[in-house]
Amino acid sequence: MSLSLAGRLALALTVATVGCAARAAAPARPQPTAPAAVPPELQPPPEAVRLAQKLRPTGLELGTMWTFEDPPLAYWRRQYGFQATPQWLEHVRLSSVRFANYCSAAFVSPTGLVMTNHHCGRECVEAQSSPGHDYVETGFYAATRAEERVCPNVYLDQLVSIEDVTARVTGAAAAGAADAARAAAVDSASARIQRECEQQTKLVCQVVSLYHGGQFHLYRYKRYQPVKLVFAPELQAGFFGGDADNFTYPRYALDVTFVRAYEADGTTPASTPNYLEWDAGGPGDGELVFAVGNPASTSRLITVAQLMYERAYRHPFYIAFLEAQRSYLQELARRNPQTAQQVRQDLFEVENSLKAFRGEMAGLLDTLLLARKVAWQTDFERRLNADTLLRSRYGDVFDRMAAIQAEKLRLSPELNLSNPNLFSEPHMQVAATLVRLVRERSLPEAQRSAEFRGEKLQQLATRLGGELPLDTALSRRLLASRLRLMQRFLPPDNALLRQAVQSGEEPDAAARRLVTSTRIGDAAFRRALLQGGEPAVDTTSDPLVRLVRTMLATARALQPRWDSLMARQDVQAARLAQALFAAYGTSVPPDATFTPRISDGVVRGYPYNGTRAPPMTTIYGLYGRSADFGNRMPFTLPASFARERAAVDLGKPLNLVSTNDISGGNSGSPLIDRTGRVVGLVFDSNIEALPHQFLFGSASGRTVSVHTAGITEALRSVYHADALLRELLGQPPAPAAAPR
Amino acid sequence: MSLSLAGRLALALTVATVGCAARAAAPARPQPTAPAAVPPELQPPPEAVRLAQKLRPTGLELGTMWTFEDPPLAYWRRQYGFQATPQWLEHVRLSSVRFANYCSAAFVSPTGLVMTNHHCGRECVEAQSSPGHDYVETGFYAATRAEERVCPNVYLDQLVSIEDVTARVTGAAAAGAADAARAAAVDSASARIQRECEQQTKLVCQVVSLYHGGQFHLYRYKRYQPVKLVFAPELQAGFFGGDADNFTYPRYALDVTFVRAYEADGTTPASTPNYLEWDAGGPGDGELVFAVGNPASTSRLITVAQLMYERAYRHPFYIAFLEAQRSYLQELARRNPQTAQQVRQDLFEVENSLKAFRGEMAGLLDTLLLARKVAWQTDFERRLNADTLLRSRYGDVFDRMAAIQAEKLRLSPELNLSNPNLFSEPHMQVAATLVRLVRERSLPEAQRSAEFRGEKLQQLATRLGGELPLDTALSRRLLASRLRLMQRFLPPDNALLRQAVQSGEEPDAAARRLVTSTRIGDAAFRRALLQGGEPAVDTTSDPLVRLVRTMLATARALQPRWDSLMARQDVQAARLAQALFAAYGTSVPPDATFTPRISDGVVRGYPYNGTRAPPMTTIYGLYGRSADFGNRMPFTLPASFARERAAVDLGKPLNLVSTNDISGGNSGSPLIDRTGRVVGLVFDSNIEALPHQFLFGSASGRTVSVHTAGITEALRSVYHADALLRELLGQPPAPAAAPR
Repeated sequence: MSLSLAGRLALALTVATVGCAARAAAPARPQPTAPAAVPPELQPPPEAVRLAQKLRPTGLELGTMWTFEDPPLAYWRRQYGFQATPQWLEHVRLSSVRFANYCSAAFVSPTGLVMTNHHCGRECVEAQSSPGHDYVETGFYAATRAEERVCPNVYLDQLVSIEDVTARVTGAAAAGAADAARAAAVDSASARIQRECEQQTKLVCQVVSLYHGGQFHLYRYKRYQPVKLVFAPELQAGFFGGDADNFTYPRYALDVTFVRAYEADGTTPASTPNYLEWDAGGPGDGELVFAVGNPASTSRLITVAQLMYERAYRHPFYIAFLEAQRSYLQELARRNPQTAQQVRQDLFEVENSLKAFRGEMAGLLDTLLLARKVAWQTDFERRLNADTLLRSRYGDVFDRMAAIQAEKLRLSPELNLSNPNLFSEPHMQVAATLVRLVRERSLPEAQRSAEFRGEKLQQLATRLGGELPLDTALSRRLLASRLRLMQRFLPPDNALLRQAVQSGEEPDAAARRLVTSTRIGDAAFRRALLQGGEPAVDTTSDPLVRLVRTMLATARALQPRWDSLMARQDVQAARLAQALFAAYGTSVPPDATFTPRISDGVVRGYPYNGTRAPPMTTIYGLYGRSADFGNRMPFTLPASFARERAAVDLGKPLNLVSTNDISGGNSGSPLIDRTGRVVGLVFDSNIEALPHQFLFGSASGRTVSVHTAGITEALRSVYHADALLRELLGQPPAPAAAPR
Repeated sequence: MSLSLAGRLALALTVATVGCAARAAAPARPQPTAPAAVPPELQPPPEAVRLAQKLRPTGLELGTMWTFEDPPLAYWRRQYGFQATPQWLEHVRLSSVRFANYCSAAFVSPTGLVMTNHHCGRECVEAQSSPGHDYVETGFYAATRAEERVCPNVYLDQLVSIEDVTARVTGAAAAGAADAARAAAVDSASARIQRECEQQTKLVCQVVSLYHGGQFHLYRYKRYQPVKLVFAPELQAGFFGGDADNFTYPRYALDVTFVRAYEADGTTPASTPNYLEWDAGGPGDGELVFAVGNPASTSRLITVAQLMYERAYRHPFYIAFLEAQRSYLQELARRNPQTAQQVRQDLFEVENSLKAFRGEMAGLLDTLLLARKVAWQTDFERRLNADTLLRSRYGDVFDRMAAIQAEKLRLSPELNLSNPNLFSEPHMQVAATLVRLVRERSLPEAQRSAEFRGEKLQQLATRLGGELPLDTALSRRLLASRLRLMQRFLPPDNALLRQAVQSGEEPDAAARRLVTSTRIGDAAFRRALLQGGEPAVDTTSDPLVRLVRTMLATARALQPRWDSLMARQDVQAARLAQALFAAYGTSVPPDATFTPRISDGVVRGYPYNGTRAPPMTTIYGLYGRSADFGNRMPFTLPASFARERAAVDLGKPLNLVSTNDISGGNSGSPLIDRTGRVVGLVFDSNIEALPHQFLFGSASGRTVSVHTAGITEALRSVYHADALLRELLGQPPAPAAAPR
């Protein structure tokens, strides 16, 4: 949920993606194919199928990220005895805002005060810093309006009205139009509606595709800009526990920042009559709470076969790949303290990705999760089959999706492992560039890849012909990792594997042989190949160059098949979403769209580590975890907490867990009680919630929030932010001290 | 590691045991059998076998519970740069004692002061209590000797000398004697040596069989009795976190008690010049520490096939059985608050057993653990095969052990599930008693089971013929659990299963059918069966009675086969231990024998819960965990800590984790540093150490101790136990207050 997700996503680009989120604009529908037999690895284990027969879907498998236009009033009444009035819902919606294009936030005073996460406002804090004033390090507090400072590029969007424009958008496409034509028509109708709306209203307008095109709603937002920084604790309080504690709980982070919305003039604080009153007590164990925010994306609509593909290949491959990376980075760090410093951030990101993938994998290995998915899909199929029209329209979608997964399973290991950039071994990178250059050079300019066009071609050739210091130990180490993955993920008779690793050879030995016997490190050899062109490359006896040739040829052959597979998958994913909407309507929430949602839940601990995780943690734990680690990073006590130790009420709750449904984009969401008062501030999920990626609802998955009692106590006793606290509590400003 | 282990062991008796600890006196060696083919479930997974090829055994697979007569001096020097002198070792041995016949302890002052765990001394605290004085609840402190109170039945054994008597013991058996004769000769020689020793020395003497008969050592102990209670904190401090936190870490328990050894006169404190000096600072992160105590038993010498039997059947069966029990108990508790109170202890015990079995199962599912076991066994076999004599003597032991496991796998599910006492369904229990009574009645008195002899037979018959209120709902519920286990663990064509559950029938429906259609609840029906005898029982159409007949017949047929299998397994286990000693000598430690051992380790945190568990916890955490749960049980703040909140230094370490090797019996062991000073008090293992049952050494398995800094701070600031503290710190007693 924090910055390291970015690293995780960057890594994700290097391997074939799950591609389970459907694009609204799907490519042309391919020729129908007969569903292929599903291989055993993609079939759910028998015990899950058996268990599924005893489960009844709860209706919450797709989560509880409800839209404000279709709140589940009957379910809330039944589940919690809670009756949400239209006034309550409108007030809550108008009190919540989207924070720039990446977070959520809420008004917490009538004069534009806004609460969000420290990790959402961090760039703004950085922007205030100058040499000698590192506010990230020290924290920031503006006791008066005059001291508040503009956050560059930050704006707040408040959803002021919603209009169903489904008929206008879908009516724009000619009946029976091909997929591509239909998608283009939908896009242009949406754009037209947005334009009209913005001209007429001066609001920010967005046509949102819900249920992957099942509904189109026009959202009109009032935008607040500029936004100014009011308060941020020091990083060590906002990000206490750092990457180690990220995605975990029990937790002790004061991940809060306050900003203020201003009128366009930049001097008048915005008037925000819809704001959430501050509950300085916060919620109790078992209390009903709502998370209100903008979840960025979910892909819960994946089928059993897609889930099994993740379990059979993609997650194990990813984890093995990340483990190899980690072990390499750790080795670097061990060898040399200076390097350790350099690779520290990489290592953190790899470890956080591993944490995330392993958390998801735990779900994929959980019989109950698989059984719930099977039960959900069975119910879905039953509904489709019970309706002649739905059956004729969507009856084949699960089989088609399964056939696509089977083909992915056949293609992806070889495609991933034939990519020279997977491990970026220096020797292999040079060989691959050379082989590609020689090949591309023979093509007409227009058909070449961008990096081989124009001057770049000659520049590259010149570099390849000159001296290039290549790190042999590094190449050997990384190549050995690749060959180990090949041995594990490719069938024993795979041609690429057999060329790379000789019969009976260990991957380490093969890597040593390839790297020590290749002449690719020799500039003269490279010049000879460059000069000899394709015939020279095709006939060289150099084993590494030959291997790279095979890899590139393999990738060239497989990539188009993979791309078309992904396009086919997108089509089926969109059909699946439409089938869902046809079968269930708005009784299930649409996948997340980074638009306002309200999710219900209760404050609740969970079984963990052989014992119980508490419903909330207290400030004791912040001092305790710091002391447990001898006050070392990332558990160093924040300076202000260290200073004010004697003044703090250690028993005040600091963080809490609840069963609300969130995803990236929800960071900064207020947690509110049934009276609409703010009782917490969402900032993370625990590791057990990672399988919610595939299916919502688990015994231990939780949303992690900062508790308002902890924020209140910190503002009062640690930061002495009296003016801010008075504003939160609705008290008049303290009288100015009389002049002496 | 706490009392609930007793519950776990009691439960263990209901299902076929692993039987992996060899008895020294093995029964007669059975006829040699050709090793049967090992079924696939008992073969280690290919990835573990592959990984094993890359591992080199560390030599510590069997753990680090070293004897004082064979300390691994070279390994300690190499590993820690630590040179243990004979004087150091003797001092440490003489400073340590066995606490009665269930715990460990140590002298911590020259005048007989002894430290052990609160959970070791709890019975003594109970013994002091009287109506109006519940010292378990309030704690106990004797500020003066006069106030110290005798602990009934507690004695302390100090190992004063060791003599190798292997030649005398083994020489007593005639060469080539049969196993049984040999065992008897060994037993009687041992007894004779012990008797002689006790007559000559007035010491407590014990001939200890190390390496399952590889060595026999005569241990002479000085026994201290009486022992008096000096200090115990209240139960809520000593057992903070209760069953929930048992086997887990981070932890915040003050599990300490002090007693004093007295001369036989009961008034003179024992003079104990060998005692451990108190280190009030305790150890730091990464520091070398030794756990000195009396581990009760280990069974690390099990083979890969035995491990796989645990993984394939025994652990999954156990876990499923305990889950069924738990779900039933939870249902009872939910129905009725009064019942909830009654089943609370049962539920805790079932949950702790589940925790333990799941922790062990996690190890069994861990590829690395399996691979390490495979690598260890491969090395062991290689050593045996490299020596002609060893090969001829022991070469077949692994195959024989594997063949035994294969037969266990065939027998045990049916044997367990044909036992009417597994779930003790009321209707089934009555039916089983009746069927057995009718059968036993026809046997001569001498051949009957004890419970059907003499008057008991007629009493039972009378009871069975009278009114017996049977709980139908309970029978249905429990029988359904049994039938579910049958469906899961018996092959589909198993005769017992097919008789119990009709084709296509759900277990719940089958249980309902059996319980509602049986007439066993009808006294007239039972009288008719009793009167009709075997012919009536054999021909009844009552489905439950017929099922019970089949179950009892199955158990009768299988039990002797199982017993002989266990005897054969004991023989192989003893041979395995002797082979180990022949191949490795004393370079590996012998299995635990509840005699003094010294285990090396370092203070070290570990990866957990997606983040890091600290090397030590602080007193902050005691207050914090209590506050996190709203001061509710089992996390209620101990009364004295609540009272003295303002006076306590919260940053003092309270508990710590280290990599020492311990097992039951080690409770109360001192943790000492390289200077021999006491720095901690062992009281538990974490859940990740449970797989040490099968193989020692893991990334996360840890010993949990109370930190001396925490004990010191509690005695000083919470309990004001000044005299005790002065004694620990080697300070003279405070001067008595002057009379007014």
